[in-house]
Amino acid sequence: MGVEIERKFLVAGDRWRSGDHPSQGFRQFYLARADGFSARVRIVDEAQAFLTLKTGRGRSRGEFEYPIPLRDAHDLEAARTGELIAKRRHRIAHGRHVIEVDVFEDALHPLVVAEIELETEEDDVALPDWFGREVTDDPAFSNAALAADGLPEEFRS
Amino acid sequence: MGVEIERKFLVAGDRWRSGDHPSQGFRQFYLARADGFSARVRIVDEAQAFLTLKTGRGRSRGEFEYPIPLRDAHDLEAARTGELIAKRRHRIAHGRHVIEVDVFEDALHPLVVAEIELETEEDDVALPDWFGREVTDDPAFSNAALAADGLPEEFRS
Repeated sequence: MGVEIERKFLVAGDRWRSGDHPSQGFRQFYLARADGFSARVRIVDEAQAFLTLKTGRGRSRGEFEYPIPLRDAHDLEAARTGELIAKRRHRIAHGRHVIEVDVFEDALHPLVVAEIELETEEDDVALPDWFGREVTDDPAFSNAALAADGLPEEFRS
Repeated sequence: MGVEIERKFLVAGDRWRSGDHPSQGFRQFYLARADGFSARVRIVDEAQAFLTLKTGRGRSRGEFEYPIPLRDAHDLEAARTGELIAKRRHRIAHGRHVIEVDVFEDALHPLVVAEIELETEEDDVALPDWFGREVTDDPAFSNAALAADGLPEEFRS
């Protein structure tokens, strides 16, 4: 478990779509979501599935990911808590970093969120000009909150 | 996922110990325990570890078990809910069945519980005479309840 520094931003418009980049379709849901522990199932392109456990709070967090049979993932959906999240993740090269742009679907449309992972807190990477407001510390934009509470107020029409 | 019919009994005395039988030491704890979902980590003989998810209620239950690295199991202990359960499981041949006798340790000493798995509800296996009171339907004797609530009242001295 390394220390992970991720910053998260809202994305407006389509400028980030220029150029080719790979993408994957995710369907994911939570089995448990408590203070200090969550269990998530993610199905990728209807072909692979992963169980991810996240533990801890603040700076002492752990993340544990295990591949599981696709059939188990489907069976486990009966025990989900909160809504199913469907999104397409696009991976965009940005210098020596990779930006992940998540385009949410269904109930969470039209939310688009970008994440960039930094190596140190001092990493002074130039952010792309299509990044909007930073929501790194806004709990309403965590995937667990999106699954439990749905689209944040400002996106509801 | 098959339908599993398990009956559980208290065990008093040491008559079940006659003869040789294999045993394993378990240390286990829960990461989540809610109505309809639990996640348990079990460390076997300090050599192997498993993550077990149980879903559902009543007759529509699912059980999903995955081997995980021993190191992950130790790291996950920081996120446990309830107490650590330590017990030694003895497997005893009984005709074409196997009886599992769990001898609890530490805070749950001197509890001893036996389980037998039947193939059908009509399975009329003769039970050994060292079986005590049946606790199949007594929620106080589930492992999840023992981890959360400790030794049932009648065992406290």
